[in-house]
Amino acid sequence: MSAADSAFLRACRGQPVDHVPVWFMRQAGRSLPEYRATRGSGSILDAIRQPDLAAELTLQPVRRYGVDAAILFSDIVVPVAVSGFGVEVEAGRGPVVREPFASPADLSRLRPVSAQQDFGFVTETVKLVVAELGPVPLIGFAGAPFTVASYLVEGGPSRHYARTKALMHGDPELWSALLDRLAELSLAFLLAQVDAGASAVQIFDSWAGALAPDEYARSVLPASVKVLHGLEASGVPRIHFGVGTGELLQLMAEAGSEVVGVDWRVPLDEARRRLGPQVAVQGNLDPALCLAPWDVVERAARGVLARGGGTGHIFNLGHGVLPETDPDTLARLVQLVHESPSPPPWPEPGP
Amino acid sequence: MSAADSAFLRACRGQPVDHVPVWFMRQAGRSLPEYRATRGSGSILDAIRQPDLAAELTLQPVRRYGVDAAILFSDIVVPVAVSGFGVEVEAGRGPVVREPFASPADLSRLRPVSAQQDFGFVTETVKLVVAELGPVPLIGFAGAPFTVASYLVEGGPSRHYARTKALMHGDPELWSALLDRLAELSLAFLLAQVDAGASAVQIFDSWAGALAPDEYARSVLPASVKVLHGLEASGVPRIHFGVGTGELLQLMAEAGSEVVGVDWRVPLDEARRRLGPQVAVQGNLDPALCLAPWDVVERAARGVLARGGGTGHIFNLGHGVLPETDPDTLARLVQLVHESPSPPPWPEPGP
Repeated sequence: MSAADSAFLRACRGQPVDHVPVWFMRQAGRSLPEYRATRGSGSILDAIRQPDLAAELTLQPVRRYGVDAAILFSDIVVPVAVSGFGVEVEAGRGPVVREPFASPADLSRLRPVSAQQDFGFVTETVKLVVAELGPVPLIGFAGAPFTVASYLVEGGPSRHYARTKALMHGDPELWSALLDRLAELSLAFLLAQVDAGASAVQIFDSWAGALAPDEYARSVLPASVKVLHGLEASGVPRIHFGVGTGELLQLMAEAGSEVVGVDWRVPLDEARRRLGPQVAVQGNLDPALCLAPWDVVERAARGVLARGGGTGHIFNLGHGVLPETDPDTLARLVQLVHESPSPPPWPEPGP
Repeated sequence: MSAADSAFLRACRGQPVDHVPVWFMRQAGRSLPEYRATRGSGSILDAIRQPDLAAELTLQPVRRYGVDAAILFSDIVVPVAVSGFGVEVEAGRGPVVREPFASPADLSRLRPVSAQQDFGFVTETVKLVVAELGPVPLIGFAGAPFTVASYLVEGGPSRHYARTKALMHGDPELWSALLDRLAELSLAFLLAQVDAGASAVQIFDSWAGALAPDEYARSVLPASVKVLHGLEASGVPRIHFGVGTGELLQLMAEAGSEVVGVDWRVPLDEARRRLGPQVAVQGNLDPALCLAPWDVVERAARGVLARGGGTGHIFNLGHGVLPETDPDTLARLVQLVHESPSPPPWPEPGP
C-alpha cells in the first residue's frame, strides 16, 4: 500500500475507506514521555531546525499510537522566524514578539524567503520522515495569516485581540499588506514541505473564531484563500482548521479546501450541513474529555464517530492534545476508532 | 416616567420604544477613573459588602454615560462566598478557590443561606441605588450554575475546563448535586435583589460556550432553568447571557428568559432567527473594537443597530468593557445609540 491509498488520504478526498482514519493535533508534544526525554529543554525553534531531532519527534507518536498520519514537528511561527522577524516561543506560553508589528516600516522585517536557502532544514526533515514512514502519510502545516498576524501584532498570545482588531479596522491597507506577506510566507513554507514529500497540508487558523463573520470575510479570508489556492496545483489535500468557527464554516467551505477541521462546539453532522457535501470533516473530540475516566472518553468518541457519518471523516480532537493527557488514553482511542464498524457512505442517500 | 416605562424594560418585553436602550456589561469598573479613585485597592468582595460604596460604584456609570440601566456592583461568586465556601477574587485574575470542589464532602461547604440574614448588604445596596436612580432601572445579577461551578472545580479561571468536564461526565450525580446547590444560591441572591427593588436580572453563564450542545443540554441547562423558572413569579425580565454561545442559542431560548445576550460572533439578525420572535436580544459590539479609532467604533455600532432590528434590542457590548477602554468612547456610543432613528418593529412584516 502507498500513502496515496491510505485511509487518511482517501478520507480527505471523500473516498470510501475500510476504517475511519485518526490522528491528533499536537500528537508530537509534551504529553509523550519520549518527547520530553528527546527534546530536552532548548528552544522549540532550535529543535525544529535540527532535521534528525525534528524527524524523530515527528515519528514518535506514529510508533506509539499507530495513528493514520504523521504531522511535521514544527510551529506556526517558523516562516516568520526564518524571514527575520524576531520571534521566540516560550515554553508554556507560546510565541512571543519583543517588538510587535505596529507600522509600515515593520513590513521590511518580514523579508522574502527562498525555499531552497531558507527552508533547507524543513526539506531535510520531511525527507527523513517520509523515508521512515513508508505508507503512512505525512501532513505538512503552516499558520493561517490571521492567526500568525495576531502574535506579531499583540506581541504574544492574546485573549481579546484588541490591537489586532484595531489594526485590521483602523488601517486596513497596512493590515492587508501584512496578511499578504504572511500568506506568501506560509505558502512558501507549505510548498517546501509538499515538494519534499508531504502528502497533505493543514492550515491552522486557530484563533479565527474570535472574529465576527463579516470581519472574517472582509479582512481575513482573502489571505487564507491566497494560501489555499496557491496549493491547488500541488494536488495534495488541504485541511483548514480553526477553533470556535461555528459561524464561519460556510465561509471556510467557500475558501477552498478538501477538509475543514472543527472543534467540539459544533456537532459534526451540523458542521457537514454548513460545509456542504463536497467537504470532508476532521474532528472533533473535546481534548479536555481525554482527562476524564475512560468510559467518558469512549462514549464521547463513539458519539463523534456516529455524527461524523463515516466516509469523509478524519477522527481527531477538536484542538490540540493537552499536556496532561495520558498517552494510554490516546492509544486506546486509536484502537477504538480503528475497530469501529466500517463507515457508511456520506452523504447518506435520502429516503 | 417610572422604571416600568423605561426604554430598557420595554425593550426587554419586546414593546415599542422611542430609542434603543443601551448599557454596558462591566460599566462599573476599572475603565472609569472615578471607580479607581473610589474603590481603592481592597478586595472586591469587601467592597461589595459595603452598601454605601457598592451603591456609589453602581451609580457612577449612570451619571457619566447616561446609560438606560444600572447594574448592581457585585460579583458572580458573592453567593458562594456568603455561603461559606472559601473564595477570593484576585485583581487582574478573577475568582480563586484555594481548596477546589472535588468530592461529595465539599457540598457541605455550600451551606444554605437566608436572604434576610446573609444578603442584608445586598438589600441595602439595592435600596440605596433605587432611591437615587429614579426612573432608571436597576439590573440585578448572578452567575449561572455552570460558570460558578467552573471556578469552584478548577480553583480559578480556566482555559480548558478539564476538571469541570471530568466531574460533569465522570460523576454526574455529584455534578448535578453541585449545580442544584448553586442554582439555589443564585436564585436566593437574585430574589433578594428583586425584592429590594431591582427591575430586571441578568444570569451570567459566561463560559457556557466552552461546551458542546449536547453536554450543555444534559448537564448544565436544567440548573439554569431552575434559576430562570424560580424568577418567573417575580415578573421581572430575565436576561440570559453567555460568550461563544452560537450553537446553544436555541437551547437558551427554550430555557425561558425574556432576553438572551449574545457576543459579537453571531450577528444579531442571525441570533434572532435562532432564538425565535418571542425573545429579545442584547448585544453585541465587540468590546475589543472600543479600543480602535472612533470611526471604526461608529461603523461597527451602526452595524449592530441595523442587525439588531430595533424593537426588542438592547444595545450592549458582546462581553464586558475592557479595562483599557477610554470612557469617552462609551459616552459617544451612548449618544450614538440614543440619537439613532426610531427603531422599526421586529419581526418586520414579510413581503
